[in-house]
Amino acid sequence: MGALLDKIKIPQDRFELRLSGSGGQGMILASVILGEAIGGQGSKNVCQSQSYGPEARGGASKSDVVISADEIFYPKAMKLDLLLAMTQESLDKYLPDLKEDGALIIDETLVTEFPDRKFFGLPFTRLAREEAGHVMVANVIALAAIAELTGCVDREALTASVLNRAPRGTEDKNRKAIEIGFAEAAKLKNK
Amino acid sequence: MGALLDKIKIPQDRFELRLSGSGGQGMILASVILGEAIGGQGSKNVCQSQSYGPEARGGASKSDVVISADEIFYPKAMKLDLLLAMTQESLDKYLPDLKEDGALIIDETLVTEFPDRKFFGLPFTRLAREEAGHVMVANVIALAAIAELTGCVDREALTASVLNRAPRGTEDKNRKAIEIGFAEAAKLKNK
Repeated sequence: MGALLDKIKIPQDRFELRLSGSGGQGMILASVILGEAIGGQGSKNVCQSQSYGPEARGGASKSDVVISADEIFYPKAMKLDLLLAMTQESLDKYLPDLKEDGALIIDETLVTEFPDRKFFGLPFTRLAREEAGHVMVANVIALAAIAELTGCVDREALTASVLNRAPRGTEDKNRKAIEIGFAEAAKLKNK
Repeated sequence: MGALLDKIKIPQDRFELRLSGSGGQGMILASVILGEAIGGQGSKNVCQSQSYGPEARGGASKSDVVISADEIFYPKAMKLDLLLAMTQESLDKYLPDLKEDGALIIDETLVTEFPDRKFFGLPFTRLAREEAGHVMVANVIALAAIAELTGCVDREALTASVLNRAPRGTEDKNRKAIEIGFAEAAKLKNK
């Protein structure tokens, strides 16, 4: 999948990411962490949002991050540059919102039917459970993988933001999750 | 301050709230909780957002919630119907964004210069520390007070949403915080 890699470039004007999964997978927290990490670096504007209610019904949970060098007047994601799908349902629901040449990142643990297009697959949930020590850090592994694949945020800023939001006592698992995410995504790049 | 009370009505078309304070006061979490609580009730659309970066610099932290019976096309708050200010800095910074007849809710513990206009004042931080058992639940006391004053969300939905997001082991303090927020705000109504 190396060929796709050079397509994950962050345009200066506007870059739209969506983190999606099921309700309990921490997609909103992950988006807040990503927004704070990128915003904290100071050179980009970031708007992070989520919608609830009748228009957002169903088991799939999503959370959007818009990054821009300029002020963001319209903060809602319109056509995604990057979609993270942690479940089959979220993949099916949000894939139509991804640009044709947008980057698709899939949790291979929980997605069963892979789409007929290029994507980056990593078993985030299995890695969290088996290598980071808790399934709840699958979202942080995914964040770190996105950081490695896109360069949208540097490792130090992401780590600081994750640890700032991590519940007390989970720091080591979160550090490990970041390490795993960067390492596994780097392997994809070399494929 | 009873005269102001009948002004906190939620218009059907669009109601914009901003929760503001300093970085560590949990305003983003509170907004996510409020968005999930209202969205979970199913009758309203909610969009919850925060901005980071150069345009949002400074010590004040804010997080916006937009509520509407209709689909929300523009999710950013434009002119606030309600502002919660947990610190002096956030009050000074965001008061200009509040509608002239908008509802202002102030933490009397940390705000030192009260504005020359009607407002609801409650010592959220002191109540959290002295009566709920931890300063960190000041945000939940404020949420419960907003729920009581506006009726934007019912107590059961708010409680479920708070407990869903509360770190394990903090459930009792959060339940207590909700109780205090509703009770103290009800006292204001009867003034």
